[in-house]
Order: sequence, then structure tokens, then C-alpha cells
Amino acid sequence: MTTSLSAELWPNVQPDAARRLMLAAVESFADRGYHATTTRDIAAAAGMSPAALYVHFPSKAALLFAISHSGHEQTLKLVESVATGGGGAKERMRGIVEDFVAWHARRHTVARVVQYELQALPEKEYAEVADLRRRIEHLVRDVIADGVEKGVFTVTDLRTAARAVLSLGVDVARWYSSRTGKTPKALGREYGDLVLRMLGATV
Amino acid sequence: MTTSLSAELWPNVQPDAARRLMLAAVESFADRGYHATTTRDIAAAAGMSPAALYVHFPSKAALLFAISHSGHEQTLKLVESVATGGGGAKERMRGIVEDFVAWHARRHTVARVVQYELQALPEKEYAEVADLRRRIEHLVRDVIADGVEKGVFTVTDLRTAARAVLSLGVDVARWYSSRTGKTPKALGREYGDLVLRMLGATV
Repeated sequence: MTTSLSAELWPNVQPDAARRLMLAAVESFADRGYHATTTRDIAAAAGMSPAALYVHFPSKAALLFAISHSGHEQTLKLVESVATGGGGAKERMRGIVEDFVAWHARRHTVARVVQYELQALPEKEYAEVADLRRRIEHLVRDVIADGVEKGVFTVTDLRTAARAVLSLGVDVARWYSSRTGKTPKALGREYGDLVLRMLGATV
Repeated sequence: MTTSLSAELWPNVQPDAARRLMLAAVESFADRGYHATTTRDIAAAAGMSPAALYVHFPSKAALLFAISHSGHEQTLKLVESVATGGGGAKERMRGIVEDFVAWHARRHTVARVVQYELQALPEKEYAEVADLRRRIEHLVRDVIADGVEKGVFTVTDLRTAARAVLSLGVDVARWYSSRTGKTPKALGREYGDLVLRMLGATV
């Protein structure tokens, strides 16, 4: 069960032991926060020895980086594939919001670590993740700019509008739970409508 | 400096030593998270002995509760005063968003503790704070419902709409910093427009 979840979360990470450690780290960070978690806690949660952990990750920060980097890469990929795909600005914006919101709802525990533990990353690793964040924001901004140019969106400040779009999606990770009574997909669709209206489009 | 900031943050808390401890706690929780902070850290940051801390707060959880409860009470009060004040649904919604967003921008460090450390509260204290959160959400929902009834707003799901409005404001605390280049007030005004459009109002 745990093994298949970790494989689903990080299909590109090998071997399985590394993925199990990442999942144990996510759960420990979510429970107690990054700073109060030790590598010993994470190893124990993954059913491994601390020495076995170090085979895959040299430090707790390396684990946080692996989780954070992968989460940002995944969301960049989904935003990129819709943003640079076909369709008008409205269709692409709807697609971005649907996928971005659904990802933050479905992966809310991972997403909380991805979004809220950034400042615990070492400087170099932080810079790498910040670059992925900038690319995500630019893609969203470009779609809004295209919509404004084509006369389908009206916004006073591109930067604020792009930030608000992403902000709505990110914050889903904070409040969404399995008791929300709405599937990630259904929530994504509702947010698609809300965002299009926010950008001045007719829905 | 620190004394006047803590007095500004918690004008109703007395004596000044209690406020200084709350400010030291906010800063320590923001740096390392709640779980990795000890009462000894907090006392030291406030320039007091651990014994002096216990005169004002019986535990670290009591400090978190004081910060969280006060933050929720403050935001409830500002939402309540606009929501139940005069004006149409549009004017009241704009006022709520302006104040709620500006509060989360201006107080972003306190707001992060208020919004992101909830699950660390003991059960009884959590229930008290959850009740304040429900009241805030209901006030926002009632203003939206009033707007829908009067034909100025169009939403498909009141609950999702109210949550999205508050979510935009809460997430400001995550990304806002003194380097944002926009005052809390200016950001609040921009978000006021975005939210009104999101709710289907003409701006």
C-alpha cells in the first residue's frame, strides 16, 4: 500500500527504498514540521536503519530538497503542457487551474511540504526551486497576457493576477482533506470558472 | 521597538511581559516551527527566564493558543464589522476583502502562525478556534448569499465561493514580504476587484 503510493507520487525516483524514505519524510514533516524531525525518525517510519537512509540521502535537507524539487517539477510540467498546448487563452487558463488545483487537493500532504517548508532549504537548493517557481509564474502570466491582448481577459496588474491564480491553487493544500466532500477534479472545475471570471472573462 | 510592536499586535493583552513572550513565540515558531521550539527558546528570545514565562503561560501550547485565538478574534472582528455594517453586498464584500487581505499582508509573520499551526493546538483549544473560523466563513457566505439574492453576484456553490474568497486572503500571509513592492492596503484594493469579479459582479 505504502509502496504503491510512493511509486505513484514519485514515478521517476529509484530505487523503491528512496521513495519509501521520501514518503516517510513527508509524513514526519507534516506531523511535526521539518525542524522537529530527525533522520532517525524518518528511517524508523520507513522501517529502515539510519545507516540505510544515508545510502540514499546524505541529509535531512537532501530529503526535503528531493520532495520539494519533485513537487515543483511535477506542477511545472502540468502547467507547461497546458500553457504551451493548443487552444485560446481561456481554454488554456481553465486547463491550468483544473490541473493545478486538482494536484494540490489530491496531493495535499505532499503539497504542504512542497509549499510551506521552502525556507528550510539550503541556499543553493532554494535557488533551484525558486527558479522552477518563477517558470511556473511566468507561464501563467504569459497566458493571462495573451488573453488580455486578445481581449478575452481584463486585468489591472498581470503580476498580481498571476499570483492570485496560483495562490488559490496553492492554498487548497492547506484546507483540503478527504472529508471535503468534493473530488479534486470537481473542485478544479469549480475553480476554473472562478478564475476565468476573476480575469474578466465571460464564463 | 519590540515592545511597541507587541503592543500594536495585541492591544488587549496585559501585562507587557505577556505580549513580549507572544512576540518571541511568533518569531521562534516562524523560524523553526512550533514543534522544534521550546519554552526555553521563547523565554530566551524575550530576554526572560523560563520561570518568568510560566508566570504568564502554563505551556508552549497556551502561548500558541493565545496567538491563534487573538489572530482569529481580530480577523473575525474586522470581517464582522464590515459584513454587518451598512451598504450593499458588493460594497461589503469589497470592504471585507480589503481589510482581510491587508491584515494578512501587514501581519504576515503572525498570520502564518495563526493559519498554519492550527493542528498543533490541543483538542479543546482547537475547537474554540475552529468555532471562530466557522463564524468568519458564515459571515462571508451570508454576504455572498445576499448578493446572489439581490442579483449582483452569481455563484454555483456558496460554500466553495466563500472558501475561495478567504483562501485568497489567507495565502497572502504565505507569499507576502516587505520586498513585495506593494503596500498591504494597495494589495487589498486590487484583491477587492478580483474577488468581486470572481463572484460575478460588474466592477
